[in-house]
Amino acid sequence: MHLYKSVWQGEYINKSISTFKERKMEVAQVLHMNGSVGEASYANNSLLQQKVISLTKLLRDEAVTNLYCNTLPKSLAIADLGCSFGPNTMLVISGIIKVVEKLCQELNHKSPEYKVFLNDLPKNDFNNLFMSLGAFKEKLRDEIKTEMGPCYFFGVPGSFYSRIFPDNSLHFVHSSYSLQWLSKVPKGVDNNNKGKIYLASTSPSSVLKAYYKQFQTDFSLFLKCRAQELFENGHMILTFLGRKSDDPSSKECCYIWELMAMALNDMVLQGIIDEEKLNSFNIPNYYPSPIEVKLEVLTEGSFTINRLEVSEVNWNALDDLNAFEFESRKPESLRHNGYNMAQCIRAVAEPLLVSHFGKDVIEDIFDRYKRILTDRMSKERTKFTNITILLTKKP
Amino acid sequence: MHLYKSVWQGEYINKSISTFKERKMEVAQVLHMNGSVGEASYANNSLLQQKVISLTKLLRDEAVTNLYCNTLPKSLAIADLGCSFGPNTMLVISGIIKVVEKLCQELNHKSPEYKVFLNDLPKNDFNNLFMSLGAFKEKLRDEIKTEMGPCYFFGVPGSFYSRIFPDNSLHFVHSSYSLQWLSKVPKGVDNNNKGKIYLASTSPSSVLKAYYKQFQTDFSLFLKCRAQELFENGHMILTFLGRKSDDPSSKECCYIWELMAMALNDMVLQGIIDEEKLNSFNIPNYYPSPIEVKLEVLTEGSFTINRLEVSEVNWNALDDLNAFEFESRKPESLRHNGYNMAQCIRAVAEPLLVSHFGKDVIEDIFDRYKRILTDRMSKERTKFTNITILLTKKP
Repeated sequence: MHLYKSVWQGEYINKSISTFKERKMEVAQVLHMNGSVGEASYANNSLLQQKVISLTKLLRDEAVTNLYCNTLPKSLAIADLGCSFGPNTMLVISGIIKVVEKLCQELNHKSPEYKVFLNDLPKNDFNNLFMSLGAFKEKLRDEIKTEMGPCYFFGVPGSFYSRIFPDNSLHFVHSSYSLQWLSKVPKGVDNNNKGKIYLASTSPSSVLKAYYKQFQTDFSLFLKCRAQELFENGHMILTFLGRKSDDPSSKECCYIWELMAMALNDMVLQGIIDEEKLNSFNIPNYYPSPIEVKLEVLTEGSFTINRLEVSEVNWNALDDLNAFEFESRKPESLRHNGYNMAQCIRAVAEPLLVSHFGKDVIEDIFDRYKRILTDRMSKERTKFTNITILLTKKP
Repeated sequence: MHLYKSVWQGEYINKSISTFKERKMEVAQVLHMNGSVGEASYANNSLLQQKVISLTKLLRDEAVTNLYCNTLPKSLAIADLGCSFGPNTMLVISGIIKVVEKLCQELNHKSPEYKVFLNDLPKNDFNNLFMSLGAFKEKLRDEIKTEMGPCYFFGVPGSFYSRIFPDNSLHFVHSSYSLQWLSKVPKGVDNNNKGKIYLASTSPSSVLKAYYKQFQTDFSLFLKCRAQELFENGHMILTFLGRKSDDPSSKECCYIWELMAMALNDMVLQGIIDEEKLNSFNIPNYYPSPIEVKLEVLTEGSFTINRLEVSEVNWNALDDLNAFEFESRKPESLRHNGYNMAQCIRAVAEPLLVSHFGKDVIEDIFDRYKRILTDRMSKERTKFTNITILLTKKP
C-alpha cells in the first residue's frame, strides 16, 4: 500500500469501508466514546480502562527509562493513540513525564521539552479534553515540584489506521484499549452472522476467518504507519483487549457482546427492533490472542518485540480496588455491578448502536443489557484479558 | 520575562489577569467565538473576516513564494493563530498550500509534507473544526488535481500570548483579526471609564494610556514568543483591526463599541442592567495605528519588517461583494445591514457579554444593538481599518 496516499487522515479507512457504506455506517464517522461529562459519558465510566493503565505502569516506566537513557533527547515526542478524554487520557502522559523528570534529577540533566500528541477519531470530544489541560498541567507541576521542561500539547484528529504524523517525528507511542476497534466490520460478515453481533461459538467459520483477516490487515497497517512515524529505536507500548484461548469465539472475549445480543434478540422477538436491522449489525472489534499479535509484528517486520505480557482485569473494576480506593469511590460502589458494566460498555458503544438502531430504542437496549449483566455477574466472576506488547523500531 | 515559565499555555495570561480575576472574568477562559453552526455562530457570521482574508491574499502569496524559494523545505510547518472555526479557517491554509504546490509544479520539485497547526484558546470549538477537516481535504485535493504532499493537522489549544510551540519549529505564521484581543482588560481602566466599555473621546487620558500600554506588553510578548518558535528567516503575516488616526479614541475604531455602550446604557436607565455592573465592563481590545505596530516590532527587535499595508473594509461586508457573490449570498443579503453587523459582533463578543451580564439579558442587548446599528448604517457608510504586516525573523 502506498502510504502517502493514505496520509489524509481517514482516507484509508474511508476507502476500505466502501461496502460498509452501503449500510450507511462508517466506523471512523460513527465510532467515538460518549462525549461530555454526563452519567453515560466515557469520562465518568472508564474505571476499567484506568485499572488497565495502572496494571501496565511498570512496563511503561521501564520502557520510558530505557528510551530516555539510550537516546537522551532534548525534545521528547510522545503520542497517545485513541486517547479519548477523561481522567485516563492524562494518567499515562503524566506518568511518562514524571519518569523522565526523575531521571533528569538523578542524572543531573536539563529536562527535555515535551511534545504531547493526543490522537483520536475526529468525533472524539476534543473540546472537553482541551479545556481540561489547564488543570492537568497545574496538577502535574504541583506533583513534580522541581522546575520541569516546557510542555506543548497537540490534538491530532484522525484514524490511526492511516498516517497521522510526519516521518520520523515520534519517540514514544502509547495506545491502550483502542486497537480492538477494527477499521470496519469485516467483508462477508454481514448476513452470515445473523443476530450474533460479534463472534460466537455458533458463528460460521467464514465469519471467524473474516474477522481475523480484518485484524491482520488493520494491525499490519497500524504497524507500517507507526514505523514510518517513529524515530529509530523509538518505543511503542500497546495494550489490547484480547484473549488467552486459541479460539477467537471463546467466552472470555465474546461474552460481553453475547449478552448484548441477548438483549437485542429479545427486542426483535417483541417487535421493537426489526430482525433485518439486527442481522446487519456487527461489532467492529477483534480480541486477538498473544500469538496472533506476535505473528503480525514479526510478519510486518519493522519492530523488535521487547516484552509481551498477559494480564486480567475483572469486569467489575471495583472488585480490583483496594479498601482505600473502594471507600473513595463509594457512590459508584453502591451501585450494583451490572449497572457499572452496562455504563462502561454504553460509554464506548452507544454512538455505534444509536447510528444503527436509532435514538428511540437506546434506553431500552441498555435497561435490558443492565438487567442481563446484573444477573450474570451475580452468578459468575468474569474477566477481561489484556495483552500488552512493548516494541522498539528497528534501526 | 522568562518565557519557559510561560509555555504552559495560558499561564502567562492567567497570572497577568490576577486583578481581573477579582471581577470573576478571565479573558482566556471567557473569550471564544460563538461555537457550533447556529444562526449566531461565528461559522455563519464571518463574512467580514473572509473579506479581509481575501484582501490580504496577494501579500500572503508573495510571502509564501518568497519563503518557499529561499528555503526549499521538505517539510513545511504553517500555523494559523486564533484560527477560530468555520469557512475562514481553511481559506488561508488552502491558499498557502496551493501556492506551494504550483511552485513545485513549475520548478519540477517534489511537494513538501505540510504540518498545519491550528491554534486558538481552549474554549474554541475544536470539535467542529476537526470534523470539518475531512471535507476540507477532499475539496483541496479536487482543486489541486496533481498529487500533493502529505498533510498533517494539529489542534493547538492555548493563548498566543504564551509559548505554544517548541523552539524553531515553524516556517510560516498567519494571524488575522485576532491580535486586537488583549490578554486582559488593562489595569487601571476599571471604574475610570464608567459606562463607555471601550476607549471613547471622553475617556480619561489614564485609560487611553493603560490600553496602549497593555497593547505594547501583549504584542511585544507575542513577538518574543514567535521569534523563539519560528525558524531563521521564517515569515509571519499579521492582520490587525486597527486605525489610521493617531488618536486611539477616534471614531474609526471605537464607534462599533460606542453603539454597544449606547444599548447597555439604555438598559441601565431602564433598570435592566445594574449601573455598577456596566461600569466594571470593558472590552479587552486595542486597535493600533500603523506606527504603533511598527514601533513595537522595531523595539522588540527579532523581526525585519518586509511590508506594512493599510486597507479598509465596509462594516457591511456585503457592500464589498461583486454581483455574482451577492447573488449567491442572497438569503443573507436580504437581511438588513444592522442585522448582519450585530450578528458579526455577537459571534465574537457574546461569550464575553454573557460572562459579565448573564444569559438573561443577552437577547435584549443584541436586539437594541441591532436597532441602533440599523439606524446608523442607513445614514452613514462606516468602515473598519486593517493593518497587515509581513515580518521575517532575523538570522
